[in-house]
Amino acid sequence: MGLPFTHLTSTKQLSRSDTDAILRVAQDMEGILKKGGCDLLRGKILGSLFYEPSTRTRLSFESAMQRLGGDIVTADGIQFSSLYKGESIEDTIVVASQYCDIIAMRHPEVGSADRAAAVSLVPFINAGDGPGQHPTQALLDLFTIQKECGKIDGLKVAMVGDLRFGRTVHSLSFLLGLYDKITLVFVSPKELTMPEKVITFCKEKGIAFSEERALDAALTADVLYMTRIQEERFTDHSEYERLKSVYTLKAAHLKGKRTVIMHPLPRVTEIATDVDALPNAAYFRQVRNGVPVRMALLAMLLGKL
Amino acid sequence: MGLPFTHLTSTKQLSRSDTDAILRVAQDMEGILKKGGCDLLRGKILGSLFYEPSTRTRLSFESAMQRLGGDIVTADGIQFSSLYKGESIEDTIVVASQYCDIIAMRHPEVGSADRAAAVSLVPFINAGDGPGQHPTQALLDLFTIQKECGKIDGLKVAMVGDLRFGRTVHSLSFLLGLYDKITLVFVSPKELTMPEKVITFCKEKGIAFSEERALDAALTADVLYMTRIQEERFTDHSEYERLKSVYTLKAAHLKGKRTVIMHPLPRVTEIATDVDALPNAAYFRQVRNGVPVRMALLAMLLGKL
Amino acid sequence: MGLPFTHLTSTKQLSRSDTDAILRVAQDMEGILKKGGCDLLRGKILGSLFYEPSTRTRLSFESAMQRLGGDIVTADGIQFSSLYKGESIEDTIVVASQYCDIIAMRHPEVGSADRAAAVSLVPFINAGDGPGQHPTQALLDLFTIQKECGKIDGLKVAMVGDLRFGRTVHSLSFLLGLYDKITLVFVSPKELTMPEKVITFCKEKGIAFSEERALDAALTADVLYMTRIQEERFTDHSEYERLKSVYTLKAAHLKGKRTVIMHPLPRVTEIATDVDALPNAAYFRQVRNGVPVRMALLAMLLGKL
Repeated sequence: MGLPFTHLTSTKQLSRSDTDAILRVAQDMEGILKKGGCDLLRGKILGSLFYEPSTRTRLSFESAMQRLGGDIVTADGIQFSSLYKGESIEDTIVVASQYCDIIAMRHPEVGSADRAAAVSLVPFINAGDGPGQHPTQALLDLFTIQKECGKIDGLKVAMVGDLRFGRTVHSLSFLLGLYDKITLVFVSPKELTMPEKVITFCKEKGIAFSEERALDAALTADVLYMTRIQEERFTDHSEYERLKSVYTLKAAHLKGKRTVIMHPLPRVTEIATDVDALPNAAYFRQVRNGVPVRMALLAMLLGKL
Repeated sequence: MGLPFTHLTSTKQLSRSDTDAILRVAQDMEGILKKGGCDLLRGKILGSLFYEPSTRTRLSFESAMQRLGGDIVTADGIQFSSLYKGESIEDTIVVASQYCDIIAMRHPEVGSADRAAAVSLVPFINAGDGPGQHPTQALLDLFTIQKECGKIDGLKVAMVGDLRFGRTVHSLSFLLGLYDKITLVFVSPKELTMPEKVITFCKEKGIAFSEERALDAALTADVLYMTRIQEERFTDHSEYERLKSVYTLKAAHLKGKRTVIMHPLPRVTEIATDVDALPNAAYFRQVRNGVPVRMALLAMLLGKL
Repeated sequence: MGLPFTHLTSTKQLSRSDTDAILRVAQDMEGILKKGGCDLLRGKILGSLFYEPSTRTRLSFESAMQRLGGDIVTADGIQFSSLYKGESIEDTIVVASQYCDIIAMRHPEVGSADRAAAVSLVPFINAGDGPGQHPTQALLDLFTIQKECGKIDGLKVAMVGDLRFGRTVHSLSFLLGLYDKITLVFVSPKELTMPEKVITFCKEKGIAFSEERALDAALTADVLYMTRIQEERFTDHSEYERLKSVYTLKAAHLKGKRTVIMHPLPRVTEIATDVDALPNAAYFRQVRNGVPVRMALLAMLLGKL
């Protein structure tokens, strides 16, 4: 089972049949994980290039590669020496292509992933390009929704917190646009509302959505996707303090509710730790789902399925 | 051969039958090392989480895991991005648990290992929590004593240098308390004497001990465990200079003696390099012993023995 | 097929029969790479010790080791904690020797590689010691010349740019001295001419050479080895600006020429990107050649051939 592209840089290149295929393979990968991994990618090397540190994404990719029997070469954070000497990202990627069979790259600049993919000699996966795209996160979010709810079509999904700068909620909105009869509820302070590009997308696709201020509006959804509100986005500090506490999800909010709670992590105060024990607190399972989803992508892009 | 616990955070949780079992398995692991390793942990992943750098401990764990056929995901030093965003250590560990089968963690704060072990979904090993515990170091010290002396019961062990802040000599003292007829000799400047908790422990256990000022008192022991005196512990710099040189062990001190010389390394000036060539200079063999001891712990905690 | 030494620290220890053997094995390794690697070094561990970051060299070594089925322990950049505590490089190497079967080390100080090799308990490869030696780079350069030109004897090789501080052109000159009827053309600004040690070497060996100022002098060579001119070498900034652009190689320079273009990378402006598409632009293939050359050295020094 292949994919109609060599590189994955954006959720926008994905069709419904692509996401169907990826989620199906990810499910198979869960079976492989239960059996302790396999040798499908033995002899293959993942180049794990993280221009900015993102320990959890990096470890997730590296774990996925190793679960399939593959190996890793890693370059992390400030240790990209060639950067200091003014090398272009294109040259770095052509060079890195000589050392591995597939690349996962994290980079602070929007568009860096497309520039890299354009020259890469091996399959390339965007592991986050600044405020731009982070397609493997969106796919693991989608996989989590399907696992937790048993389906995706017809669901009501609420997104809460910083919808303006939150890369994950944008990508997830675009991906949900591939599914039928989705309802979206956007809950945010007025300073941090969903950007025009997502609103326009919903209108064009005919996705039912509403914009809300109060957390309550999200509690009746099938899925509540929480994000962190960052202090530095506010000019008025007292405003931040007020909103931060308004959007703190507590176990008390969820009494008798089966709403699936998701969060891209790390969380700070926006989900109280008393939520963790609820059966519908899905955010740590969501992290775990990153491994089979990335296993699926690594195997599919390497043409091993 | 299992252990009666899932996580190893402190030497205090170890009984004599635990240390007997660990040292016996470590000896078997030496045989495996001589044969070039094995596949016992093939498909297993060690999460090597070092919040502060400790290259030798990290490399020792990673080497041990790979000698058993296992894989590694590593997060090292300042590159724990989630830290910067205020994530709790508990969340970090639950997340890391999703990517691996066993965790070794180094962290600068006392007690961090117990907090981590309390939530870890996979076996957890404390690789040093600040001035707290470092149980794998104490076990490799014990393994070294047994290998060098052929036994542990009945030995006279001298500890020299900074006994106040030296984590390794505290842990080793507690472990030696499991053995019979141990005599301890504590040699230190008066500013850096063994803390009350160790003295009290010796009294309660009925361990014979003496506190000394002069290096000579240590030279007749079966084992001389040297530690580094750190300049920053002294208010009076001239006092540091005087003591530093008093506690410099030289080959001349050891003429005709078979005292086994140990040191947790790195050493600076406290052991002259002319000691290195003596057959009883055991400190580099001590480093090597860390690999089979950690192989034993990884295999036992993963239930593979 | 072995080598008459245990450690590789300098190109000066290499004879013609050594380079012949290494290049022959490197060619075999290319065949192994085409088949997806092998298990020759299964169970062996490379200690990859980079006291200063050099991502491409490190990744090249680590890729080479894994292509042969071996494993890696890595210590990179500032994370050498023991350094902070004043440990000697000799102690660090003896300790690292306990964790692996072969060491590749990069270090900022000239001579550090020889100090390390003198005490290492396992085979040791210098991966660059400051402005000193970088023998694996010189060997991959040699391998590239042989692959691109079909031979080395009788070639005319031009070196352009910073010949004074450019470690790679010194090492390559010494290696080319092992071959017959080599002609060297040294093109540089007068501030950055080839140092006396290389000039003397050429005279002693009877190697034909000329020193030039203009890029044109290099365009008729069989091989043009470009290096980067570093701004910080100049006291007069306008002088730097003038020379920098004089030595920018463009596709227009190479019209109708088959001169093989090499560069140790990273390049900044000294080779225009319009050169990249020319069939004789060999610098990215040169990078790729680092992998089979390092595979050859790892296998030969570990006595596996």
